[in-house]
Amino acid sequence: MEEPTQQPVETTPAPAPVPAPAPAPVYERTGADRNTVYIGKKNAMAYVLAAVTQFNTGAAEVKLKARGHAISRAVDTEEIVKNRFFPGLKIKQIILATEEVTSEDGRPTKVSSIEITIAK
Amino acid sequence: MEEPTQQPVETTPAPAPVPAPAPAPVYERTGADRNTVYIGKKNAMAYVLAAVTQFNTGAAEVKLKARGHAISRAVDTEEIVKNRFFPGLKIKQIILATEEVTSEDGRPTKVSSIEITIAK
Repeated sequence: MEEPTQQPVETTPAPAPVPAPAPAPVYERTGADRNTVYIGKKNAMAYVLAAVTQFNTGAAEVKLKARGHAISRAVDTEEIVKNRFFPGLKIKQIILATEEVTSEDGRPTKVSSIEITIAK
Repeated sequence: MEEPTQQPVETTPAPAPVPAPAPAPVYERTGADRNTVYIGKKNAMAYVLAAVTQFNTGAAEVKLKARGHAISRAVDTEEIVKNRFFPGLKIKQIILATEEVTSEDGRPTKVSSIEITIAK
């Protein structure tokens, strides 16, 4: 149960119903989703922009996640971020895996996935 | 210029016209090509079979190389080799890169590539 305690006032670390007088101005996501770009069917540049924006708003690392045919687009995204925006980009980790999904006709299918963790 | 040297009769392994008195009985490839499976447009199982065959004929490591859309098939290949044939398969290295190729209309284009090195 993480919560960003950014204001140095008395923080109550539990999810108690305290009225928050100073709302966080940044785009907020929960746990695993934070700093993750899910690669889908759009043009790679859409995901490049998403990743670059996350770095420029303070993220130290960004995860690029994709499944199936989008895996090659995840690699495109990483390469474009490196070649055009952050030449010193480091690949911290690449995880290949298999996930069970339900296909359109309702049957369980296996699909490969990739998770590329990059850091400026 | 590849040639399948399956019959153990006098084979000329190099393009030079030298008579080879002791032909190598195994399918021979030069330097970088050895133990490399190039992933193209075929079904992933074709490349799975190629990789498994290389392991079963003594290779300690196999490289799976792909470009563009075939990148996702390279990941499929690695996952199938691991899940169905060698559960203890190790991924030794994954290299992501950008290569310059000439497109069909003659213009230079960039394409992403992957090289997955696996070991039993």
